[in-house]
Amino acid sequence: MTGIRRLVLDVLKPHHPSIVELSTVLSVLPGVHGVNLSLYEVDQQTETVKITVEGENLDYEEIKQSIENLGAVVHSIDEIAAGKRLVEEVQTLQER
Amino acid sequence: MTGIRRLVLDVLKPHHPSIVELSTVLSVLPGVHGVNLSLYEVDQQTETVKITVEGENLDYEEIKQSIENLGAVVHSIDEIAAGKRLVEEVQTLQER
Amino acid sequence: MTGIRRLVLDVLKPHHPSIVELSTVLSVLPGVHGVNLSLYEVDQQTETVKITVEGENLDYEEIKQSIENLGAVVHSIDEIAAGKRLVEEVQTLQER
Amino acid sequence: MTGIRRLVLDVLKPHHPSIVELSTVLSVLPGVHGVNLSLYEVDQQTETVKITVEGENLDYEEIKQSIENLGAVVHSIDEIAAGKRLVEEVQTLQER
Amino acid sequence: MTGIRRLVLDVLKPHHPSIVELSTVLSVLPGVHGVNLSLYEVDQQTETVKITVEGENLDYEEIKQSIENLGAVVHSIDEIAAGKRLVEEVQTLQER
Amino acid sequence: MTGIRRLVLDVLKPHHPSIVELSTVLSVLPGVHGVNLSLYEVDQQTETVKITVEGENLDYEEIKQSIENLGAVVHSIDEIAAGKRLVEEVQTLQER
Amino acid sequence: MTGIRRLVLDVLKPHHPSIVELSTVLSVLPGVHGVNLSLYEVDQQTETVKITVEGENLDYEEIKQSIENLGAVVHSIDEIAAGKRLVEEVQTLQER
Repeated sequence: MTGIRRLVLDVLKPHHPSIVELSTVLSVLPGVHGVNLSLYEVDQQTETVKITVEGENLDYEEIKQSIENLGAVVHSIDEIAAGKRLVEEVQTLQER
Repeated sequence: MTGIRRLVLDVLKPHHPSIVELSTVLSVLPGVHGVNLSLYEVDQQTETVKITVEGENLDYEEIKQSIENLGAVVHSIDEIAAGKRLVEEVQTLQER
Repeated sequence: MTGIRRLVLDVLKPHHPSIVELSTVLSVLPGVHGVNLSLYEVDQQTETVKITVEGENLDYEEIKQSIENLGAVVHSIDEIAAGKRLVEEVQTLQER
Repeated sequence: MTGIRRLVLDVLKPHHPSIVELSTVLSVLPGVHGVNLSLYEVDQQTETVKITVEGENLDYEEIKQSIENLGAVVHSIDEIAAGKRLVEEVQTLQER
Repeated sequence: MTGIRRLVLDVLKPHHPSIVELSTVLSVLPGVHGVNLSLYEVDQQTETVKITVEGENLDYEEIKQSIENLGAVVHSIDEIAAGKRLVEEVQTLQER
Repeated sequence: MTGIRRLVLDVLKPHHPSIVELSTVLSVLPGVHGVNLSLYEVDQQTETVKITVEGENLDYEEIKQSIENLGAVVHSIDEIAAGKRLVEEVQTLQER
Repeated sequence: MTGIRRLVLDVLKPHHPSIVELSTVLSVLPGVHGVNLSLYEVDQQTETVKITVEGENLDYEEIKQSIENLGAVVHSIDEIAAGKRLVEEVQTLQER
């Protein structure tokens, strides 16, 4: 079984709905095993959140649509893992 | 079984009741497996505490209400994990 | 079984009795599985010690009383964990 | 069974197709167990991506061709592991 | 079974007898499972050594006496663990 | 069974043949379980590569010869492990 | 069974014989399970090497003699572990 196993998204959202609601919506999408939402930065009207979604055969378009339905925007996909098993990014010699 | 599995809260509280009492109250709420309260900063009248709650089907509103009942205030939800399993936040390449 | 599972205390003590004696007294209190005493700082008359107590159903008042009986003072409770299992503090995105 | 078990590639690509599409294409190539694509840097027309491919008997030429077919370019191979088992790079004394 | 399980000592010693001899003497004391001696600093006449002793029911007075019998002095007890199991020092939020 | 279990080599090579070819050649030498080649630095005509070879009874002369046959040069052996089991380098107190 | 289980030595040696030869000689001494030789620094006539020897009942005098027989000198014993089990050095609160 191939397909997307992890997505790490940089998301800008209004303060409402809260990340509690957003986490609940995302955690029940097809293929999702779990989500983690972590607060990067809080501004007056908005907050930036890092969303990690893990599962099998994740549907990026559906996840993105669910985020937008709650008034938030995906700024970038910072990491994606796909395949028969989850491969972690490897820190290389030049990056140390 | 989906639902919230971890909440990390930034909480401002008066010195009394102590974090001993607060930990005891939070640890027996429905769905809670355990709590960790760590002191960030101590001021003359107040202290800032980081509260990590882990369990299954955590009820954020009830946890928040219990905190407020003891005279404390939730400043922000810094991290939330939900779903069939606990997903950790992944450090991305750009954050190193 | 709920109750306190870990206490991390910041303690000021005279040089005598030594941390050997203090560790022996604390390690046999009810519910205590083990203690760790680590030296922070040594001054002319006093020393600051970080005391980590782990166990089940720890009784903070009794632990505090035992510390005071040996002439030492608890400055602050820096961390407390309670519940059915020991939950560790989670480092958040904003703290890195 | 020998052969390449890991490739870490530094890749320059246009914004489209997205890394979602690229990850899907690479994850189904022969021998590939999984891929991880992490964003290094985003410019106006292009983005730099670090691609980690793990599997058995990886065919570098085919992987490179698939990347180029999507309009991207391999800048460098930053790490490669081959053999009967995956050997990690060892940090040496002089590098610390 | 309670008692001391770990002692970390800061010790000043002459160059002779060597840490080879000191390690051999300490490793056979009652209750000792093992010792680790690490060199901090070397001066003209003396050297400072960090001694970690682990075991069960360690007898600090006997260990100290053995160290003094070889012409060395215990400057401070930097860490002590006691109880039914070895508890590690926990790094707190304020120390990071 | 004794013999060399790990070699970490600092190697200067021309851009061609690539590290893909070099990894393939080294991974099938007698005793080799696996190799890792990581890029240190790229210059106009040459590149510096760190080669980690792991296995049993590694033959350094044969490995060196294979590297030289591909037009590359071993600058230094940065680490070597030998014996009945692989022993890692231990970071000492003075190095921290 | 007590005795020395680990020795970490700071050794100055001429470029020849190489660390390949030195590792082979040390790895077959009585009680030695394995050795790790890591290069610290290279000078015109000499090189400084960190030698980690692990095993049971290690004979420091014999190890030192073998090193000297190859024209090298032990500058210092940086770490030694002895006893029924290998005890690691513990990083203390004051060292962080």
